[in-house]
Amino acid sequence: MPHAPAPSLEDIQAAQVRLRGHVHRTPVLTSSALNALTGAQLHFKCENLQRSGSFKARGAHNAVLALTDAEAARGVATHSSGNHGAALALAARTRGIPAHIVVPRNAPQAKLDNIRRYGGLLHLCEPTQQAREAAVAAVITANGARLVHPYDDPVVQAGQGTCALELLQDVEDLDLLLAPLGGGGLIGGSAVAAKSVRPGIRVVGVEPEGAADAVQSVAHGVITPVMKPASVADGLLATIKPSTFELIRTRVDAVVTVPDAAILRAQRLVWEILKLVIEPSSAVPLAALLEARVEARAAQVGIILTGGNVDFSACAARPKRSAPP
Amino acid sequence: MPHAPAPSLEDIQAAQVRLRGHVHRTPVLTSSALNALTGAQLHFKCENLQRSGSFKARGAHNAVLALTDAEAARGVATHSSGNHGAALALAARTRGIPAHIVVPRNAPQAKLDNIRRYGGLLHLCEPTQQAREAAVAAVITANGARLVHPYDDPVVQAGQGTCALELLQDVEDLDLLLAPLGGGGLIGGSAVAAKSVRPGIRVVGVEPEGAADAVQSVAHGVITPVMKPASVADGLLATIKPSTFELIRTRVDAVVTVPDAAILRAQRLVWEILKLVIEPSSAVPLAALLEARVEARAAQVGIILTGGNVDFSACAARPKRSAPP
Repeated sequence: MPHAPAPSLEDIQAAQVRLRGHVHRTPVLTSSALNALTGAQLHFKCENLQRSGSFKARGAHNAVLALTDAEAARGVATHSSGNHGAALALAARTRGIPAHIVVPRNAPQAKLDNIRRYGGLLHLCEPTQQAREAAVAAVITANGARLVHPYDDPVVQAGQGTCALELLQDVEDLDLLLAPLGGGGLIGGSAVAAKSVRPGIRVVGVEPEGAADAVQSVAHGVITPVMKPASVADGLLATIKPSTFELIRTRVDAVVTVPDAAILRAQRLVWEILKLVIEPSSAVPLAALLEARVEARAAQVGIILTGGNVDFSACAARPKRSAPP
Repeated sequence: MPHAPAPSLEDIQAAQVRLRGHVHRTPVLTSSALNALTGAQLHFKCENLQRSGSFKARGAHNAVLALTDAEAARGVATHSSGNHGAALALAARTRGIPAHIVVPRNAPQAKLDNIRRYGGLLHLCEPTQQAREAAVAAVITANGARLVHPYDDPVVQAGQGTCALELLQDVEDLDLLLAPLGGGGLIGGSAVAAKSVRPGIRVVGVEPEGAADAVQSVAHGVITPVMKPASVADGLLATIKPSTFELIRTRVDAVVTVPDAAILRAQRLVWEILKLVIEPSSAVPLAALLEARVEARAAQVGIILTGGNVDFSACAARPKRSAPP
């Protein structure tokens, strides 16, 4: 089955116009301390400060705002480990339409709260791919809702690509762009945007060692899922699809992996030094630099910090002073 | 003894020019979720993202950069519970001069690390006001260093005032400006800047209930220290001085207090919703809104988030997933 065509630069530019006033133009931060640690000039695009707490707001809004009124009236639906679900709920609320969100029962509480906060209609299911797809199919059949896939959709990919487009508008001389790689929608859209406006830029995706389906797939030339993906970076466990595999093969220069321990170290550095709350999935690109999995010495490096939805209730300790709340 | 003259708007504007390229122009963030919780339109000036992790970088750089070469050569000195010390160390390093920082032995580890990271020369002392002042005097006698007081200095106050000036340049129609109140340097400089460029604005300082010397002093018409100040907001325990008391009496519309429990609640909301790491001292203005200590309904409200230097080592729990590192 042929997959949907890749988004073009024009699609991403159109998304940027469509998203104006609906999502934040997030700041780009720098840190001399983190530059010193990595030997590169780092530019952090802060999508943890994005509406709904992650870059997923871009793709979700682009998809919802592109619907005709007749399509929109029947609502939208998706399955999501969390961030895309919250983003779609927010986008649907903006348009005054229902959002049906299928979520595995074991998703972090903070992510479920986020979806509820934006008025999403939660449908809990068993935490298997099969159960999720069956539950979404049932919701779509019952309501006539439109599926907005988290990443296997060129409209969603174009929305995610606006993040890299903005970053390159703010920092024109990037040599290297690093982004986390889960299902591949962000790296795919980012690569189209970045290579179009700055052809010489290197684009590298980073995934956890425990969910290295993209690395395996590139090596084998065919999509090669990881059977039981596991990582602290719980937003990066999805498997790439033909549409994102094609973008990765043709537009992304390399995919590298990092171990969980490095992800947690990088996350802590961002909290301590950048003063930003990020979830583990956001920390994988910095982890790749700290572990020297990517050559970046003296380079201008863009890093997408993808999200900040963290479950604070999991931090049991109530410290005495000056410590995390 | 007459105290130093208050900084003027011109002093603050000159500081803004002097600081360019040395401190960040920090972003201003908004959150529809926090607006809904408070019934106001909140604009957060993110000084936790400032160099050295707090707004103190402004006053310290302004003081260091204003020294003549001959003055600068002998170095600078201060006593500080942490943030001003780190900021002064950073400013001194910029100019290539020594910074002698007297710090009480019980200061949080993260704050000591911050000072060392910037090359400050640490002088540990007992945690009493008397011991701190004696230690600073000894350092100054021994080295000929110039004292840069954390707040009792119009050059430092002018530097801190640049923060409110920037905020009002970015958000012109503020009705109300809220800032934490410790020694009074930030609220003093902020009030001069804000009232000068927007005469109708209300400026309100917020202090912890356990360190309410400014509220007491305003009530009694004379500086009235709290004998044993105590609060989770450990950056706000200092006592106001004649120079800052004068600014508070003449330029600040009100000073209100908040309990520690409300401070911790507000801090957690900022971590969870704004995705910003802030220290408890930064959370007092939002706490005042949530506790209805300030009338702000439907108002455009500027809030200075003053710093993000948090001691993560105090958080003993190593959570399983998606939780603070």
